Amino acid sequence: MRGVIMRAPGDIRVENRDEPTILEPTDAIIRLVATCVCGSDLWPYRGAEPADHLAMGHEYVGIVEEIGDQVKTLTVGDFVVGSFVISDNTCEICQAGYQSRCVHAEFVHGTIGTQAERARIPLADGTLVATPGQPDADLIPSLLAASDVLGTGWFAAVAAEAGPGKTVAVVGDGAVGLLAVLAARQLGAERIIAMSRHESRQALAREFGATDIVEQRGDEGVARIKELTGGLGAHSVIEAVGTQESMMQAIRATRPGGHVGYVGVSHDVQLPGDELFFSGVHLHGGPAPVRQYLPELIDLIWRRKINPGKVFDLTLPLDRAADGYRAMDQRRAIKVLLQP
Amino acid sequence: MRGVIMRAPGDIRVENRDEPTILEPTDAIIRLVATCVCGSDLWPYRGAEPADHLAMGHEYVGIVEEIGDQVKTLTVGDFVVGSFVISDNTCEICQAGYQSRCVHAEFVHGTIGTQAERARIPLADGTLVATPGQPDADLIPSLLAASDVLGTGWFAAVAAEAGPGKTVAVVGDGAVGLLAVLAARQLGAERIIAMSRHESRQALAREFGATDIVEQRGDEGVARIKELTGGLGAHSVIEAVGTQESMMQAIRATRPGGHVGYVGVSHDVQLPGDELFFSGVHLHGGPAPVRQYLPELIDLIWRRKINPGKVFDLTLPLDRAADGYRAMDQRRAIKVLLQP
Repeated sequence: MRGVIMRAPGDIRVENRDEPTILEPTDAIIRLVATCVCGSDLWPYRGAEPADHLAMGHEYVGIVEEIGDQVKTLTVGDFVVGSFVISDNTCEICQAGYQSRCVHAEFVHGTIGTQAERARIPLADGTLVATPGQPDADLIPSLLAASDVLGTGWFAAVAAEAGPGKTVAVVGDGAVGLLAVLAARQLGAERIIAMSRHESRQALAREFGATDIVEQRGDEGVARIKELTGGLGAHSVIEAVGTQESMMQAIRATRPGGHVGYVGVSHDVQLPGDELFFSGVHLHGGPAPVRQYLPELIDLIWRRKINPGKVFDLTLPLDRAADGYRAMDQRRAIKVLLQP
Repeated sequence: MRGVIMRAPGDIRVENRDEPTILEPTDAIIRLVATCVCGSDLWPYRGAEPADHLAMGHEYVGIVEEIGDQVKTLTVGDFVVGSFVISDNTCEICQAGYQSRCVHAEFVHGTIGTQAERARIPLADGTLVATPGQPDADLIPSLLAASDVLGTGWFAAVAAEAGPGKTVAVVGDGAVGLLAVLAARQLGAERIIAMSRHESRQALAREFGATDIVEQRGDEGVARIKELTGGLGAHSVIEAVGTQESMMQAIRATRPGGHVGYVGVSHDVQLPGDELFFSGVHLHGGPAPVRQYLPELIDLIWRRKINPGKVFDLTLPLDRAADGYRAMDQRRAIKVLLQP
């Protein structure tokens, strides 16, 4: 089968990979219907993480083609959405809602790789959620978004305690940041400030529910958020970048006692203990437990209450994956959908 | 009047200070009945913070001697407990429960200084809470503890979400750590692990409600907490030291999705973003909003449900303050009560 391999930073190839097969009785083999390129794929692409023949792709929707003997909740032919982390969904950590840190957690990125025609999904009962039926074609991008980028934005909004009466600021206008705006709106936030200087992303942020746009960054961005919040800072700030600047911007834009939800994969970040201490904020984040939210997100998408698939502004055949990476790296595309 | 001045690190004097007077109509003048030395006073004492003629002391109980024209809730003669941070208790931040970050916040430490015979307390209505009557003498140490060290331990336990069904680990066996044990017990925690290698402190921890003692520190301490929690880590970890080692010990001892409540005043701490990200813990702390908890804590003390005053294992007249600092610095005393 064909699949995307990152041989080295910046070197994206679509190569012949071995057909996946059932290795464990809890596995399922799925045929990918849609997959995509993640903002986090750009870290190794740009050399900020090592990359030596990585099997790329961790966002996916597909059709179950084969199941192991112990798979109970899925049937061949089911349309499924999965999380970017394999989880049993039964251990104590999963049951507490942290499936991305399941005691049997395994990242799909790197070894499984869903930028491919097929994939073996371990712990299929825990990891995959079947949709109520075969989806209409127009729902597929949104279901794909649920797999990571929407689930991650949703977790960020939950971690930041976005909700009624709250002012929420979002640092980062990538797909996760934009979908965090959507999540904050769904969670009932009163005011949602998107921090973005890109016109097309500002427009999508507004469509998803942003009430204000702040173009300034860093200390100026913080000052602007304070201006908009009576000098206090936002109740909830979502960080969806992962750099020192974005983390400090998020912490400083949050009022004392407020909540920072951070989901940008942290790179070269050192948080100064004294500043964090005196800030009085709550900090929570990490790899999103997408699995927790999948049933709810699938339901919202199925009933056409939300349309997160709008973040895909470029669709390419799998064979042109390298073009997709380039477009995202150069910020010509918000998010690239790949069709296997 | 007599009051403690830290002229320079390590140089504690009891000097003549000007008698405090009402400067603002919202001030009260109190005569201190008891005051004490805080673990945080040791930072400047040891030279980890600057000290140039600091008016020391920020924990206090006393009797109202004079009030400004706008003070409404207090009467001359009231016995009062105050927080170590001045707050109006009416602003949006105070109302959200973060009085230590009140928009009019001012630290008692450094300029006001309650290791003295009298003190001027600004924003007296917001800062001070009167007890139901004149307390019996044996309640005074506990009421004094409420002013900071109990309130801070309580906040740490709340920030760590200690509660029924939870395993709570406490890093730090100073007075705050010990009272965090008491707080976790009051909040209903199922299991409380005190990390301490000092026999007398272990004994007090057990008396306050600790179910387990761990003597190991650092990575070994973390490994021991994991052993005691099925490999997962504690649900709630309280950090009451403020060093890099203690913060990392707290974060690493917490299970994914668990809560770290940190109240040790942070010194030379840099939190690595990537480790924090993948830990999946919640982090919350800072200067405790003691004012929020004072009514509840006073009530528990008044009804003799808790006896936090036990942390005072040395009582000295104010004039011997220097001996008190020395005893705490050398860890010969857990906490020193000073009698003006």
